Amino acid sequence: MTVLPVSLADAFLTPDRRKGGRISLVGAGPGAADLLTLRALNRLQEAEVVFYDRLVDPDVLEFCPQAERIYVGKEVGRHTWPQEKIDEVIVAAALQGRRVVRLKSGDPGVFGRATEELAAAAEHAIPVEIVPGVSAASAAGAALNRSLTERGATDRLVFATATCREGDETPEWVEVLRPGTTLALYMGVRKAPKIAADLIAAGVPGEAEVEIVASASTVREKIARTCLSEMAATIAREEIANPAIILIRYAKPLAQVCVQPVGVTAQA
Amino acid sequence: MTVLPVSLADAFLTPDRRKGGRISLVGAGPGAADLLTLRALNRLQEAEVVFYDRLVDPDVLEFCPQAERIYVGKEVGRHTWPQEKIDEVIVAAALQGRRVVRLKSGDPGVFGRATEELAAAAEHAIPVEIVPGVSAASAAGAALNRSLTERGATDRLVFATATCREGDETPEWVEVLRPGTTLALYMGVRKAPKIAADLIAAGVPGEAEVEIVASASTVREKIARTCLSEMAATIAREEIANPAIILIRYAKPLAQVCVQPVGVTAQA
Repeated sequence: MTVLPVSLADAFLTPDRRKGGRISLVGAGPGAADLLTLRALNRLQEAEVVFYDRLVDPDVLEFCPQAERIYVGKEVGRHTWPQEKIDEVIVAAALQGRRVVRLKSGDPGVFGRATEELAAAAEHAIPVEIVPGVSAASAAGAALNRSLTERGATDRLVFATATCREGDETPEWVEVLRPGTTLALYMGVRKAPKIAADLIAAGVPGEAEVEIVASASTVREKIARTCLSEMAATIAREEIANPAIILIRYAKPLAQVCVQPVGVTAQA
Repeated sequence: MTVLPVSLADAFLTPDRRKGGRISLVGAGPGAADLLTLRALNRLQEAEVVFYDRLVDPDVLEFCPQAERIYVGKEVGRHTWPQEKIDEVIVAAALQGRRVVRLKSGDPGVFGRATEELAAAAEHAIPVEIVPGVSAASAAGAALNRSLTERGATDRLVFATATCREGDETPEWVEVLRPGTTLALYMGVRKAPKIAADLIAAGVPGEAEVEIVASASTVREKIARTCLSEMAATIAREEIANPAIILIRYAKPLAQVCVQPVGVTAQA
């Protein structure tokens, strides 16, 4: 299949366009239906078919009763719907001339596999857009009634995921969490023991503040506050499951109080 | 002034509560009025007074014609409204029993000075909430029609600001941008020459992809694509001004192709 830039496709491949097929990758936000944007609501109301994720709240789907609604949920580790198949079905629906919404929890641009879906649309010269959404980390901050960045303490915010592609090496957490940083870890609950151990081994103080927000903004929301050295035990004791955001704050004042993390240079 | 936990305040300081004063720190999103959330819209429609920022689009204010609308904008470097004064006026309005919206561009929890306003509200036992919003980086990704994270290339996303508190040392960019990272730099346009030079000195390849999105999602939106070594020249030539997001992608494959960044270990 020849890949055309979308602009060329606009000019030459009019049949698909005439039929009006298009794909919107829509951020559904963190969960609560009222954390959808007005633009997302508009796309849902105009959709003919909506492909939605496991993490999208049923309430959100009530905004598009007119649309065919198709579940393409993936559970981590269980590939009910491989990404390639999702790419295929959204493209096939758009090629039929339908207005397609691919509804993704949070923001499509943050750990959302948007790249594959954008590429699939571009390959078939289908007009495609991203409708940005509120990411789960922002909702976690709101749930805690606390800013993700705190002037003078944490002026850097890192989004990372513990669930990498198979074959990828483990993230080098020592690189990620330096003094002055809030780490928002997506889907990290199952790997919490190893992540905590790696961070502490890399010199992050065990006293570093940890907040865990599961199912932020939904009726199932659950909050736990602890510190890095107690993180794994807290998750186990409180029976916290994904979807959850783990916020680990390595504040600058904390870095000054604690022993200099000599391990960092050695492992760099 | 005695600081009470909000829960205690709820129980004992009923007069303020009876009057119904409350503060919502509301994320206005990146600019476009339709990137507001439904919850933000609700808070605006119910507000009696709205304190808004320089970066909030005039369209957004049309959602709250009933409210008194007060501009508390700050320009970087020009302290028309110092933060302490903003804290004071929102608290004073809530203590009069009014429903106060503090409307902030993007997400209140990301470089939004929410901490100071939350603390001011808590000090006076005023009920306060954060309504999360779409951050400018998410809107920048949508404007580019590109994901902020790309599986296998960039599986980490760092939000940083070039505008630190006076007296804070310069961010150590070498710590921030490691292979596999997308750096979303807020308000970095003016410091672009120094940031680019520091990153390159730290071993980040000059070929690293750079995308700059000014005024994402608004009619003034402007996009430039370049590489790290050309970043400052591009910003100057295209006359790009804040508010802008600079996305710098240090993809893993790029790290493998380029010379090993020996400078990193030396400077760690």
